[in-house]
Amino acid sequence: MKIVFLGSGNVATHLAEALHAAGHRIIQVFSPAEENAVLLADKVGAEAVSSLQHLNTGADLYLFCVKDDALQEVILRMPQTTGTWAHTAGSLPMTLFSTRKEEYGVIYPLQTFSKTRRLNFSEIPLFIEGSTPATVLLLEDMARSISREVHQLPGEKRSYLHLAAVFACNFVNHMYTLSSEILLNEEIPFAMLRPLITETAAKVTEMTPREAQTGPAVRNDEQVMRNHLELLSHAEMKELYTLISRSIQSR
Amino acid sequence: MKIVFLGSGNVATHLAEALHAAGHRIIQVFSPAEENAVLLADKVGAEAVSSLQHLNTGADLYLFCVKDDALQEVILRMPQTTGTWAHTAGSLPMTLFSTRKEEYGVIYPLQTFSKTRRLNFSEIPLFIEGSTPATVLLLEDMARSISREVHQLPGEKRSYLHLAAVFACNFVNHMYTLSSEILLNEEIPFAMLRPLITETAAKVTEMTPREAQTGPAVRNDEQVMRNHLELLSHAEMKELYTLISRSIQSR
Repeated sequence: MKIVFLGSGNVATHLAEALHAAGHRIIQVFSPAEENAVLLADKVGAEAVSSLQHLNTGADLYLFCVKDDALQEVILRMPQTTGTWAHTAGSLPMTLFSTRKEEYGVIYPLQTFSKTRRLNFSEIPLFIEGSTPATVLLLEDMARSISREVHQLPGEKRSYLHLAAVFACNFVNHMYTLSSEILLNEEIPFAMLRPLITETAAKVTEMTPREAQTGPAVRNDEQVMRNHLELLSHAEMKELYTLISRSIQSR
Repeated sequence: MKIVFLGSGNVATHLAEALHAAGHRIIQVFSPAEENAVLLADKVGAEAVSSLQHLNTGADLYLFCVKDDALQEVILRMPQTTGTWAHTAGSLPMTLFSTRKEEYGVIYPLQTFSKTRRLNFSEIPLFIEGSTPATVLLLEDMARSISREVHQLPGEKRSYLHLAAVFACNFVNHMYTLSSEILLNEEIPFAMLRPLITETAAKVTEMTPREAQTGPAVRNDEQVMRNHLELLSHAEMKELYTLISRSIQSR
């Protein structure tokens, strides 16, 4: 398949590399920031373009991996092209394309991407939605060439999946951040927490999170929770501690 | 070393099994709930006792693995014994023992324990504190016989470490719970999140949590955050979403 990438961020980088490795031809990478376009284009043997006027209009697939709030504008400024247009955003409907294209869809990779982390793409669940049966087939074929976990999912359910991912990934990571700040003050290395962090994540592959819950809140250990609130100096962290503990206790 | 366990919960079970496997003699397991005492005692070739009157008073080490709010009472009701007394609680001072004993201390295992999960104890960081240099040595020897990660840590720092662990483990797990509730409503299996959960935990072994942060809050993507708040039906989850997102943005 001949593919054009719109965007050169974390998602574009991981997806383009996986598609390139699977034998697809990435013919262009567009980014208004030319050096970013060049960086990714060089990795996957593509041409870098920083203006939509120079876009190749004859590809099979145009993959929009731009920031959510930039997507609408990029769609409006796109030239007419052949092929299918698809974005990779969890929270945006596929119908953003509907005024410009008949064949459009979504391929949403459920993973957290940082440029410096290597990932095994074949294990990343990919969620597909398409405007026509042929579009669904095309996106599924493409998705199956890079992952063993391909599922069809309508847009409304995708929004909820994305929301769940915010809790299970973004908010989890922020708990790590808060934890690291507490340790920094005490000059205890964050690395000490690694076995705990790994085991906490591993437990929920074998039991439900409700079954896996431990700690003072689920034990209703009021004395420990009072002590913890005294140790916390920032009002925001006290508030978070109280609210999350109450949320644990209410279950 | 001849060891008596006070308590038969998750921590007692994992610690007793590791010490037993390392060649120590677990001579008794005390629990007021006799069947729990029997269950653990049978695993480690010990005698089960459900009354402190029947406690063997000639052991080298008495390990108190009871609930935080029960510890003080168990200490008060203990008969006089030889050896050293130590507890395993992150948030409690070792001086709880001081009116009853001269040789006392703490061995705090930094991990989340559920009875049904097998753990490699040798990787679990153990934090030691003792009332005398000889007590520290004894507890360190014991700790090194089951773990490669043994550190001395004064009680005040241990409280902060325990607080950090509440964020990095207990609160993280609750984020998984909230996430699973969102998916349950949509009939999407929680298992779909496993690669994401594993990668989120793995990332912070290579980079700081601040560097690893992704998602709408750190991108200041107000539109996505507004959409997410609309999808959330429970007031408590809305409040958590807002507060955690604000906390991410403030960094």
